[in-house]
Amino acid sequence: MSENISTQVQLVSRPQGWPTQENFRTVQVTLDELAPGEVRVRNSYLSVDPYMRGRMSNAKSYVAPFGLEETMTGGAVGVVTESHDESLPVGTLVLHQLGWRDMAQAPASQFRAVPEIPGVEPSVYLGILGMTGLTAYVGLTTIAPVAEGDTVFVSGAAGAVGTAVGQIARLLGASRVIGSAGSAEKIALLTEKYGFDAALNYKDAPVREQLAELAPEGIDVFFDNVGGDHLEAALDVFNDGGRGALCGAISTYNSTETPSGPDNMVNMIKRSLRLRGFTVGHHLDQSAEFQERMAQWFSAGKITYDETVVEGIENSVDAFLDMMRGANTGKMVVRIPQG
Amino acid sequence: MSENISTQVQLVSRPQGWPTQENFRTVQVTLDELAPGEVRVRNSYLSVDPYMRGRMSNAKSYVAPFGLEETMTGGAVGVVTESHDESLPVGTLVLHQLGWRDMAQAPASQFRAVPEIPGVEPSVYLGILGMTGLTAYVGLTTIAPVAEGDTVFVSGAAGAVGTAVGQIARLLGASRVIGSAGSAEKIALLTEKYGFDAALNYKDAPVREQLAELAPEGIDVFFDNVGGDHLEAALDVFNDGGRGALCGAISTYNSTETPSGPDNMVNMIKRSLRLRGFTVGHHLDQSAEFQERMAQWFSAGKITYDETVVEGIENSVDAFLDMMRGANTGKMVVRIPQG
Repeated sequence: MSENISTQVQLVSRPQGWPTQENFRTVQVTLDELAPGEVRVRNSYLSVDPYMRGRMSNAKSYVAPFGLEETMTGGAVGVVTESHDESLPVGTLVLHQLGWRDMAQAPASQFRAVPEIPGVEPSVYLGILGMTGLTAYVGLTTIAPVAEGDTVFVSGAAGAVGTAVGQIARLLGASRVIGSAGSAEKIALLTEKYGFDAALNYKDAPVREQLAELAPEGIDVFFDNVGGDHLEAALDVFNDGGRGALCGAISTYNSTETPSGPDNMVNMIKRSLRLRGFTVGHHLDQSAEFQERMAQWFSAGKITYDETVVEGIENSVDAFLDMMRGANTGKMVVRIPQG
Repeated sequence: MSENISTQVQLVSRPQGWPTQENFRTVQVTLDELAPGEVRVRNSYLSVDPYMRGRMSNAKSYVAPFGLEETMTGGAVGVVTESHDESLPVGTLVLHQLGWRDMAQAPASQFRAVPEIPGVEPSVYLGILGMTGLTAYVGLTTIAPVAEGDTVFVSGAAGAVGTAVGQIARLLGASRVIGSAGSAEKIALLTEKYGFDAALNYKDAPVREQLAELAPEGIDVFFDNVGGDHLEAALDVFNDGGRGALCGAISTYNSTETPSGPDNMVNMIKRSLRLRGFTVGHHLDQSAEFQERMAQWFSAGKITYDETVVEGIENSVDAFLDMMRGANTGKMVVRIPQG
C-alpha cells in the first residue's frame, strides 16, 4: 500500500433490516502532507462490533448515527509511520477510533499509545484488553454486580463480550456460569475452553425451557447480549434480588418487525429485580481499574480468548455481517496486511 | 359487638382471575381469655390493598400466599380494650397486621402504638402516614430517585400510592408531574386537587400516544402501579438515564391470559435506563426517616389525601374488589362501626 493513499469504507445509505454491500462503498483518499501536531498511522487491525448496527440507523440513540458518505468510525490499532508530534514517535503502537481505513491521519490527541505485549497480537486491544473486556467488567461490577457464590447467565456467550463475561464472572466469585450460543461447536467451546458450567444452544429448543433445566436453583445475575427470548427466560428464573445488565439485543437489531416483549415483567416486582441498560462509553472512568485487574489476570494466564480474523479491509462489510450472524467465536477483527 | 366474639373474613379457595365472594367466608370466633402478655384490640379501620391479590394465589412471590381457611391478614388500626401488657394500656391506638377481623387478640409485640392526631382519623396510618406513604417515598428515594427538575410519570395516579407519589415527587424537587387514571373525574382531581401538571385517562386513547403528547421533553422517573401498556409508554419517552420504580401491575393481576410485554425493551440499552421492582416490606429500614419527613410535610399542610371508606367488615370483599376495579380515590379502607 502507498503511504499517502488511504483506502476507506464509507456508509452511503441507511440499511432497512440487514445491511448489504450496497449500503457501503470503498474509496481511495489521498492524504495531505502531515500538518504540525499530526501523526500518520498504518492500521494493523480494525474492529467490527454489534453496536455499529445501531449507528447505521437514524434513530434516537446514545450515540449519533454514522454520517452518510463518511468513513465508518470505530476501534482500530496500528503503528505510527510518520509523526509531527514528539509524544508519538514513529514505531509507536496506538489505539484510536478512526475506524475502517488502512491509513489514518489526525492530530496526535486522537491516538493513545499502548504497550506492545511480547507474543501477543495488538488486536487484543480491540477485544479482551479493550472495550470488549471493559464492557464485560463494567457490566459485572457496576451494572449488575456479581457476588460470591452467584449463578450467572450470559446470552450470546461465545461472542467477544460473552466469553469475557463468563471468565470475569468466575474471577469475581460466581460459583456457576451458564451461557447460550447458536451452535453445537460454540456450546462445546464454552464448557471445554471457557470454563462455563453449562451451555445451551438456543436453536435446539426454547431458551426458557433449557435455562430452567440448567438453572434449577435460579440465577442471580444475567448479562444480556441478545434480548428477546433470552431476557424472557432470565426473568422466569431470577432469584429474589436478581440483577440484569442489558448490554445488547442483537436478536432485534436487524428486525424490521416490532418484537414482542417479555410476558413476565411482573416478576420484576414479585422478586425485587433490577434491570439496567448500559453503554460502555458512559463508564470509561472504570478503564484504569479495569486495565489494572485485567492485566493481572491476563499475565497470570487466567484469561482465555479467541479471535476471528478476516483478512483485508475490502472484507470489512462481510466481516461485520458475519459477526452479526454469529459466525465468529470471540472478537471479530479485520486484519490489514502489512507491507 | 360482643367483646369476646371476633368476626373474621377468611380465604377458602384460590381465585382464578377475578376473586368472587365464593372465595371467602365470614366466621365468628370466640376469643380465649387474655393470656399474660396479650392485648385485645377493637379495630377501627382495615386496609384493602392491591398486593393482597398476589397473596391469594399460590405462585412463587416475595411473600407467602395467604393460608386457606385462615383469616386474611393485612394492615389494621384499632384501640386496646383489654390489656395484659403494661406497655400497651387500655385506650392505646395501635397499628398491626392481623387483618380482616373486628376484634384482634395477640401478644403485645404484634401491635405498635401510634399517636392520635387531633382532628384526623386513625385510618391515615393505613395510608398516607403508613405503608402507602412509605411505598411512595421508598420508590422516589431509593428505587428510582427523583432529582431536582425531573419530569415524573405516575401510573394509577389516583390510587392511594399514586396520589402520594405525585405529591412527594414534587416535594423532592420534580418540576413536572404527570399522572394516569381511568375516569374524567379522577383526571380532574389529579390536576385540580393533587397538583399534577397533567393527567391522562387511559381509557380515552392509547397511553403511549397520550404520554408522548404530555411529555414532549421526555420523562426522567416512572413510578408504575399498573404495568402493561403504561410501562411500554414510559419506555417510549424515557430520557437518557431514566429510572423506573415498578411497584404494581394491577392491570395484570386478575388476568388469566399471558400479557404481552413491552415491545421497546431495547430502549433500556439505547438510553441507559434502569427498572427496579420493589416491595415496601423490604425497605422498612426507611420507616423512621419517612415518618419524620412525612410528619413535617403533613403538619405543614403540604399533603392532601383522600380516602374511600366502606362501612362494615361484612363489606370487606366488596371493598377489595371495588379497589381492584379502580372505584376508589385515594386509600380504600373498611371502617368498623364502634360500639
